[in-house]
Amino acid sequence: MADDILQRLTKTIAARKGRTVGNLAGSAEAGSYVEKLFSKGEDAILKKIGEEATEVLLAAKGGDARHLVYETADLWFHCMVLLAQHNCSAQDVLQELARREGVSGLDEKAMRETVGSNKK
Amino acid sequence: MADDILQRLTKTIAARKGRTVGNLAGSAEAGSYVEKLFSKGEDAILKKIGEEATEVLLAAKGGDARHLVYETADLWFHCMVLLAQHNCSAQDVLQELARREGVSGLDEKAMRETVGSNKK
Amino acid sequence: MADDILQRLTKTIAARKGRTVGNLAGSAEAGSYVEKLFSKGEDAILKKIGEEATEVLLAAKGGDARHLVYETADLWFHCMVLLAQHNCSAQDVLQELARREGVSGLDEKAMRETVGSNKK
Amino acid sequence: MADDILQRLTKTIAARKGRTVGNLAGSAEAGSYVEKLFSKGEDAILKKIGEEATEVLLAAKGGDARHLVYETADLWFHCMVLLAQHNCSAQDVLQELARREGVSGLDEKAMRETVGSNKK
Repeated sequence: MADDILQRLTKTIAARKGRTVGNLAGSAEAGSYVEKLFSKGEDAILKKIGEEATEVLLAAKGGDARHLVYETADLWFHCMVLLAQHNCSAQDVLQELARREGVSGLDEKAMRETVGSNKK
Repeated sequence: MADDILQRLTKTIAARKGRTVGNLAGSAEAGSYVEKLFSKGEDAILKKIGEEATEVLLAAKGGDARHLVYETADLWFHCMVLLAQHNCSAQDVLQELARREGVSGLDEKAMRETVGSNKK
Repeated sequence: MADDILQRLTKTIAARKGRTVGNLAGSAEAGSYVEKLFSKGEDAILKKIGEEATEVLLAAKGGDARHLVYETADLWFHCMVLLAQHNCSAQDVLQELARREGVSGLDEKAMRETVGSNKK
Repeated sequence: MADDILQRLTKTIAARKGRTVGNLAGSAEAGSYVEKLFSKGEDAILKKIGEEATEVLLAAKGGDARHLVYETADLWFHCMVLLAQHNCSAQDVLQELARREGVSGLDEKAMRETVGSNKK
């Protein structure tokens, strides 16, 4: 099932992160894309999120739905790398979304109000 | 299961979108948060994605993992609204992520190279 | 001269910042827009920069040059507030741009290479 | 004077843009950084603005004022390239800032309210 992809990716990313931690500095040169991101540090991950969010905007304005899906996948993937950096995962995000749904009885207006009240 | 939340949200968002389309202009005032977003048009959705991506960055720098999860949920939710605007869904994003996994045999480096070659 | 506007704005922003620092917490409620931004703290300023950068993108895609000028003014103004927060100003930015010009002899390619080498 | 740097950059960017327009497709390969940006098209410029805005945020959070000035210079420079793409310039942005100052008598709160009323 496609749904399980988030769990499989979470495991893969966690494994890459563990490998980076075990590495001597610099030795990640030979590693995977995700290992390199982890070894460059959080700002490198955050720059990618800024870039991919921009690409999502431009893809939407470009009007090609396939391109939009593609760039959204890039954005979500890098969010998962960031979550792993903070010892969280997509599963936590899904649970937060489910929590809001429970609170609001599928009424997003209430959901957002809950969101707003939590914000500061 | 938390995994199903994406499918349930997809349905809810699609229902809100359908309602917006059926509405007379302005009558969405009384509708849900998502209905209002759809009736304001795509740029309103894109502004939210820009805002929420910024909030993800700031939450990560703030170092509070729960806050990061919270803001990522906001970002993904608004991405789902944007996808619905383009008649796509989170399921398409998951399939794109699964496709890359298949291509790369869980090697994200190759996955990214595949990504890169598709980009231009 | 329009050129002096950056210097005048720098002074005004600095004055607002000074007033905020002297205020008791909360009392900035009655103050100016900029005082409120300073009293909310740096993340509030950074959120505005994320928002205004997004608006610049959308204005560019919208194709209305006047709107683009307008949103760019918003973005630069909030950058000036951020610079003041760090005890810098637009003047420092202009000097940095002039420094690059001197380095490159108006050849931006070289200018960017200088930029790149400074980046890491 | 540092103030004139914006005018000098405007001229340089306009010259680079003119050269791009005259070029056969692809021949900008040998040109300057700015020529290449113009020949790649507007989305390439917008991606840079998204990237540089993210770098400004990260520099502010990093706390190094010189780095912040540096990244703000990058952001403003790419805004000037975007303005040129729309046949506008930094001078238009300065005039817009001066106009707001005139409207508000240096009261940014009023300035922002003027801004708000113009926004939709």
